[in-house]
Amino acid sequence: MGEAFNILRTHHVEYRVTDLEKAYRFYVEAVGFTVTDQDDRHLFLRGLEDRTHHNLVLTRADTPGVAHVGFRVASPEDLEALADYFVGLGLRTHWVDGEEPGIGRALRTVDPFGFPIEFFYQVDSVPWMLQQFDHYHGAEVMRLDHVNYITPHIQDAAAWYQTHLGFRLSEYTVSVDNGQDRIWGAWLHRKQTSHDVAISNGHGPRFHHASFIASSKDKILDVADRLAAMGYVDNMERGPGRHGTTNAFFLYLRDPDGNRIELFTGDYLLIDPDWQPIRWDLNHPQRQTFWGAPAPKRWFDEAMVAYDWSGRPQPTEAPTLPDRPAFLDD
Amino acid sequence: MGEAFNILRTHHVEYRVTDLEKAYRFYVEAVGFTVTDQDDRHLFLRGLEDRTHHNLVLTRADTPGVAHVGFRVASPEDLEALADYFVGLGLRTHWVDGEEPGIGRALRTVDPFGFPIEFFYQVDSVPWMLQQFDHYHGAEVMRLDHVNYITPHIQDAAAWYQTHLGFRLSEYTVSVDNGQDRIWGAWLHRKQTSHDVAISNGHGPRFHHASFIASSKDKILDVADRLAAMGYVDNMERGPGRHGTTNAFFLYLRDPDGNRIELFTGDYLLIDPDWQPIRWDLNHPQRQTFWGAPAPKRWFDEAMVAYDWSGRPQPTEAPTLPDRPAFLDD
Amino acid sequence: MGEAFNILRTHHVEYRVTDLEKAYRFYVEAVGFTVTDQDDRHLFLRGLEDRTHHNLVLTRADTPGVAHVGFRVASPEDLEALADYFVGLGLRTHWVDGEEPGIGRALRTVDPFGFPIEFFYQVDSVPWMLQQFDHYHGAEVMRLDHVNYITPHIQDAAAWYQTHLGFRLSEYTVSVDNGQDRIWGAWLHRKQTSHDVAISNGHGPRFHHASFIASSKDKILDVADRLAAMGYVDNMERGPGRHGTTNAFFLYLRDPDGNRIELFTGDYLLIDPDWQPIRWDLNHPQRQTFWGAPAPKRWFDEAMVAYDWSGRPQPTEAPTLPDRPAFLDD
Amino acid sequence: MGEAFNILRTHHVEYRVTDLEKAYRFYVEAVGFTVTDQDDRHLFLRGLEDRTHHNLVLTRADTPGVAHVGFRVASPEDLEALADYFVGLGLRTHWVDGEEPGIGRALRTVDPFGFPIEFFYQVDSVPWMLQQFDHYHGAEVMRLDHVNYITPHIQDAAAWYQTHLGFRLSEYTVSVDNGQDRIWGAWLHRKQTSHDVAISNGHGPRFHHASFIASSKDKILDVADRLAAMGYVDNMERGPGRHGTTNAFFLYLRDPDGNRIELFTGDYLLIDPDWQPIRWDLNHPQRQTFWGAPAPKRWFDEAMVAYDWSGRPQPTEAPTLPDRPAFLDD
Repeated sequence: MGEAFNILRTHHVEYRVTDLEKAYRFYVEAVGFTVTDQDDRHLFLRGLEDRTHHNLVLTRADTPGVAHVGFRVASPEDLEALADYFVGLGLRTHWVDGEEPGIGRALRTVDPFGFPIEFFYQVDSVPWMLQQFDHYHGAEVMRLDHVNYITPHIQDAAAWYQTHLGFRLSEYTVSVDNGQDRIWGAWLHRKQTSHDVAISNGHGPRFHHASFIASSKDKILDVADRLAAMGYVDNMERGPGRHGTTNAFFLYLRDPDGNRIELFTGDYLLIDPDWQPIRWDLNHPQRQTFWGAPAPKRWFDEAMVAYDWSGRPQPTEAPTLPDRPAFLDD
Repeated sequence: MGEAFNILRTHHVEYRVTDLEKAYRFYVEAVGFTVTDQDDRHLFLRGLEDRTHHNLVLTRADTPGVAHVGFRVASPEDLEALADYFVGLGLRTHWVDGEEPGIGRALRTVDPFGFPIEFFYQVDSVPWMLQQFDHYHGAEVMRLDHVNYITPHIQDAAAWYQTHLGFRLSEYTVSVDNGQDRIWGAWLHRKQTSHDVAISNGHGPRFHHASFIASSKDKILDVADRLAAMGYVDNMERGPGRHGTTNAFFLYLRDPDGNRIELFTGDYLLIDPDWQPIRWDLNHPQRQTFWGAPAPKRWFDEAMVAYDWSGRPQPTEAPTLPDRPAFLDD
Repeated sequence: MGEAFNILRTHHVEYRVTDLEKAYRFYVEAVGFTVTDQDDRHLFLRGLEDRTHHNLVLTRADTPGVAHVGFRVASPEDLEALADYFVGLGLRTHWVDGEEPGIGRALRTVDPFGFPIEFFYQVDSVPWMLQQFDHYHGAEVMRLDHVNYITPHIQDAAAWYQTHLGFRLSEYTVSVDNGQDRIWGAWLHRKQTSHDVAISNGHGPRFHHASFIASSKDKILDVADRLAAMGYVDNMERGPGRHGTTNAFFLYLRDPDGNRIELFTGDYLLIDPDWQPIRWDLNHPQRQTFWGAPAPKRWFDEAMVAYDWSGRPQPTEAPTLPDRPAFLDD
Repeated sequence: MGEAFNILRTHHVEYRVTDLEKAYRFYVEAVGFTVTDQDDRHLFLRGLEDRTHHNLVLTRADTPGVAHVGFRVASPEDLEALADYFVGLGLRTHWVDGEEPGIGRALRTVDPFGFPIEFFYQVDSVPWMLQQFDHYHGAEVMRLDHVNYITPHIQDAAAWYQTHLGFRLSEYTVSVDNGQDRIWGAWLHRKQTSHDVAISNGHGPRFHHASFIASSKDKILDVADRLAAMGYVDNMERGPGRHGTTNAFFLYLRDPDGNRIELFTGDYLLIDPDWQPIRWDLNHPQRQTFWGAPAPKRWFDEAMVAYDWSGRPQPTEAPTLPDRPAFLDD
């Protein structure tokens, strides 16, 4: 059923920021995003490897948070099929066309777990910066890799994205309860990498982070130095380090409004259909950080508010499973 | 039509070597492949990121060269459809099942341009070494990326792989003749990277190289040092350097028998169906090497013999287009 | 006065370990030291860049700790002048010749602050591994950089090493007390780098760590992966990260006995005699870690016992200044 | 005798350029030097690690070439002793004081082999950029490492710099003639690294290059990409690669006027007085490039004109020894 439409990948995310100038300095000058376009309410950013209009929209708002995630589909037919499916579910949908610069006809909705999402096929091409090495700076942001959601309905959400949207499971984390595995987190992909969407257990719906590919581990170290030199010491929340799950090298940042991004490099290609998902125990000491250092508490405690398309924050619920490893409870 | 079957990716290649011990020292100890299995006639190698049995078979033979390229398909049904297609073309095919360790039922044939190829779906799983970092060494070979063919029938070959096998064009090189572009080389992909098969103009059918992903540019520099220290100075043919086409960082090696491999890192993901292929002029001074240094002549003059499934070398023909950039003719 | 003898550099350190096999696996196989020699009680290790016999001696003992630090002087005359000076101070000294493999005539003593030290000129040459790249592994340990002492008499110790032994101050940390700077730590050098000896305030005499140069930041990241894969997760105490002081990139490790080493790269050359020492406030949030993450408490709480030449632990005293930044007191 | 004065290091070099704007774009924007000062005839540049005024002066002139090399001495007394020595040799000397911005009283002369040199002690301090990581770009030029001279009187020059100026030999190249070693090149140091001055056999006096430390091998690769993207493909003359001599990783560049610089990283500390110099045969295939690829002919054929203090080019002579390896003669 999920294969009745072909979602290509997580394509972009819209963050709310309270000050576009501060956001410009952080995202563009410090971190290393490329500017496609801007107006007095928005900044449209992309990566050096991107050939489509943007992977991150920063929109001026009173409060920070996430406004939507955009998924690109493989064809206009996929878009129509998705619309039929969402309408059939009874979820509120509406169409826009060109409202978001660079993006054509788009279906806007909220998924069953409260996350504002958008599907589209048409997107404008933009110049490729891949060999414009004189524009490389900071972490050399290449492209959007994935988004990370938090929901108390993790089992349902992980199942729904697989069964209905055709996502495939690359890795998962379990909370072991009386010897039974209960899904605590799911790493789900459409493109041929470890993930496009990760979903974790916790108070939600909230949005944990969007993750952008940096060109190498070196450049993640370099951007840590750069951020520190530019006064962004407190904006470096976790890392640099290596994740157990996905094997990626990471650095988590908080933007000047507290929105969270991850800089990420070094997971793996996942092409073969008979892939056996990797299982991790929530309490495995190397799951989060392969080198052992635990994430700081605020990495678990704090997450971004998810807004619906009318600009209202989504109501949240507490989880029933533990929201973090036991070794962080003390 | 090409999409009537789903080829996942170029999965493995079989090279002929005259001395397995020398090959072991070169490929395993120096370059950094992982050994899956071996017997007195073969060495089955894979990369640290691979979860399937092998990406390179080294087979003892009187003469070096290439014995076959293996493509994995997405399902058993794809395999049957491919067999129908090849039989319909009048190409000689035969089935094997388990003759090649780790590989199940397989269709063996020779493509219309003389390259020995194999299609299969079933392949054995093997332990994943991705986080066994204490086994990492040399270039840290991760996986097979692509193979590179040489044929005088480049226009036909580039078209056939796209039209009939469903490959997509990421980049291409043209020889400009009276203001007309004539295809000189084609970079073709099935998996979501820049290529699985590259085809270049020249005396052929011959096989130029198979290319394996190294974990980073650093590790390609490291393996150059390592090879030099182990007495393999003459085995380093070209590089390290950056290609214009595909943007990858490369090092070309000749094994102790003269078979050629490339170590490769840093091309790009190619996911979107509306990708506009990148055009390069054969005589662009940065096409081959973005930093400008031309490839040595032997890189153009020498290539590997392609053998058919009965072990006979394929007869070759000369090309009608120039086989190299004009600036190398002097 | 200090220039009456020419100390070249901190040359080697002797650590006590309870199990030489475990030490071999950790230091040689995992971390990447080169073995010069071994017997049933010792392991003599060096770096890839070293041309003298050893930079680390591991000696089997009942308890871990530090047995001595060896300083090389520029000539036999310097050695005699140092002996005169130490005898004149009333410090206990004795001469040995060849007792330590690879090291010639040596003056053994304990400095006024309780640290067991040795001076010598003659040392055996050993093969240079610098271009034996096939032996490179782990962090690619190149050479010893410095040692770090802890003493409650930090002002006196910092002054004495400068005034009497000719060390020069590259950087220093102060504890500010009623607007007055009080020296809390001193980075002192003889060779032309940021330090040979660092001395910090704290309960002592104790020995905090010896620091060895890794060939690059990349190799420090690699060795973190390698250590994690080999079961040494708990041995990674702090980092990888960048120090504010000295600007070096670091990783702190505890060996299987709890002895501490630092892997270190990327400070600076310090050649000019009119260098103005860099001042840091103990409570500067980027002093310890330029990226802001504070060191774990055990990095401050735990240190190695210093033994005298007869194998007795040196008695210790508590400091009067705070032993750590205020932001770690909570 | 040589130790009667203490030369600290090769401190700066003055290049003649015909267009300061082009030079600014090349050296500052592309390569990554830091600007200390400029006027309508000069550009004063330094490295990120430097705390003295400049390591490179670019002076507008009708023709390119080298105007002088500046050596810093350890004290004013060393400067007077050097003056006595040069006057005693009958070499023309003159004093200046403040004529070169940032540099105090200086003795200007031409060495016995025709190279314009300057000695000084006093130099202005400038802000340290080492932790101003937001200013890092390009190759991240850290400091001047060495200069490379060409003279047909190589034996005499190598001996004179050792005997009279106190330089020490780290490595040397010999041309073997009837079984006899004849010095062909000498790597000579004052600071504790592999060299401050290298002198090679050839038509001279000419100046081959000045060499600047890049922060890592990665940044040398990065700057190659950057130069290529900025249109400087033809300015990349040789490399990136690894030298056999000194073990350093290198990239040779020609500025817009053809003046040559080297970007360099990864030699070694040389502290111990009993160092045994490393001997290389001119015809060793790994001497120049450890990975085997020979230098292009223009690297041997072309060098910079040395000017005297009055702005006249120094007359040159041909060498009697071969000026390049035999394998480059074809």
